Amino acid sequence: MNQARGRFLTIEGGEGAGKSTNIGFIRELLEERNIPFILTREPGGTPVAEQIRELLLKEQGEDVDPVAELLLVFAARAQHIARVIEPALAAGKWVICDRFTDATYAYQGGGRGLNESLIARLEDMVQGSLQPDLTLVLDVDPARGLTRARQRGSLDRFEKQQLAFFTAVRQVYLDRAQRYPQRFQVIDAGAELAAVQAAVVAAVSRFLA
Amino acid sequence: MNQARGRFLTIEGGEGAGKSTNIGFIRELLEERNIPFILTREPGGTPVAEQIRELLLKEQGEDVDPVAELLLVFAARAQHIARVIEPALAAGKWVICDRFTDATYAYQGGGRGLNESLIARLEDMVQGSLQPDLTLVLDVDPARGLTRARQRGSLDRFEKQQLAFFTAVRQVYLDRAQRYPQRFQVIDAGAELAAVQAAVVAAVSRFLA
Repeated sequence: MNQARGRFLTIEGGEGAGKSTNIGFIRELLEERNIPFILTREPGGTPVAEQIRELLLKEQGEDVDPVAELLLVFAARAQHIARVIEPALAAGKWVICDRFTDATYAYQGGGRGLNESLIARLEDMVQGSLQPDLTLVLDVDPARGLTRARQRGSLDRFEKQQLAFFTAVRQVYLDRAQRYPQRFQVIDAGAELAAVQAAVVAAVSRFLA
Repeated sequence: MNQARGRFLTIEGGEGAGKSTNIGFIRELLEERNIPFILTREPGGTPVAEQIRELLLKEQGEDVDPVAELLLVFAARAQHIARVIEPALAAGKWVICDRFTDATYAYQGGGRGLNESLIARLEDMVQGSLQPDLTLVLDVDPARGLTRARQRGSLDRFEKQQLAFFTAVRQVYLDRAQRYPQRFQVIDAGAELAAVQAAVVAAVSRFLA
């Protein structure tokens, strides 16, 4: 049997953009259509990659060098692709991933100020030609998103960053959406939840059609 | 005061080559000469890098992708250079490091079979122009070294590899020593301990002269 390759969908957005809620809407839509899929996340998605995630998110007793942070992100990604993403796509399953390499451009590039070409070289090394087929950016005003995120409780090493960091993160997402319009859909995640849900469902449905 | 930069010495060798013992000889020699120095190791050398070391060495419930392993090694190295090695060298201290990038060429290149140019690209990204001033390779027949190492007790993820892995590791060390003769000194670590000590002391003394 010649199994058609699955599709690769990524959900991006800053803190408090409502990624989990909206991934729930995508899940329902795919279930309705009987499309086999897996839900996963970055950094993480495998036991080793989840250990790297923990290392990245927890408060450390020392400053983390930005290049070290970037390499940890791509180490987790290499493991995730090899163990989870590629096998699922090859088996015909869709992969719905909460954050992927666009988040690296946004957080380590925009937020930390690392050179875009450094990230691009690692992307090439780790992903080869693998790119998402569809990327939804849940766009929300960073001040509002942070307020939401901070209501959730204790903050990780990224959530503790200041507003300027998240403003830079958002700008990179919007810039990339403009640069790669065939892959990106920007959703206004500051709207009423029903309107956000409708926009997400519409974007995925157009992609399914 | 214009502080002269410290020198960077690395000690390399396969399992059971006697690195710790011989680092002790170097420590004594530098103390005799009143040279300020730090002893450190890779992977590791900072709190974050030691957590990466633990992740690399412990047995995982899944196969670790070789590129993920390589990126973890360089993540630890970036952190180690930024937080420990560069500050010490800049402050005029010598840095004596138990393994460095030659070990990556030996273990991830020779042992795991990763492409040398992939390692070289990461080396350039993380180290820029930083290279050891002197590298001692403690060379021992892998079968003999493994017997020694296995007498020490429980084995990590690397020590559990088979002889062919360590034969490849040794070959890379010897190849690199031949390619960079001005930086490398190969010590016959299979000789009597007194002879090994004399050879290590002679190599470091020549370097000091």
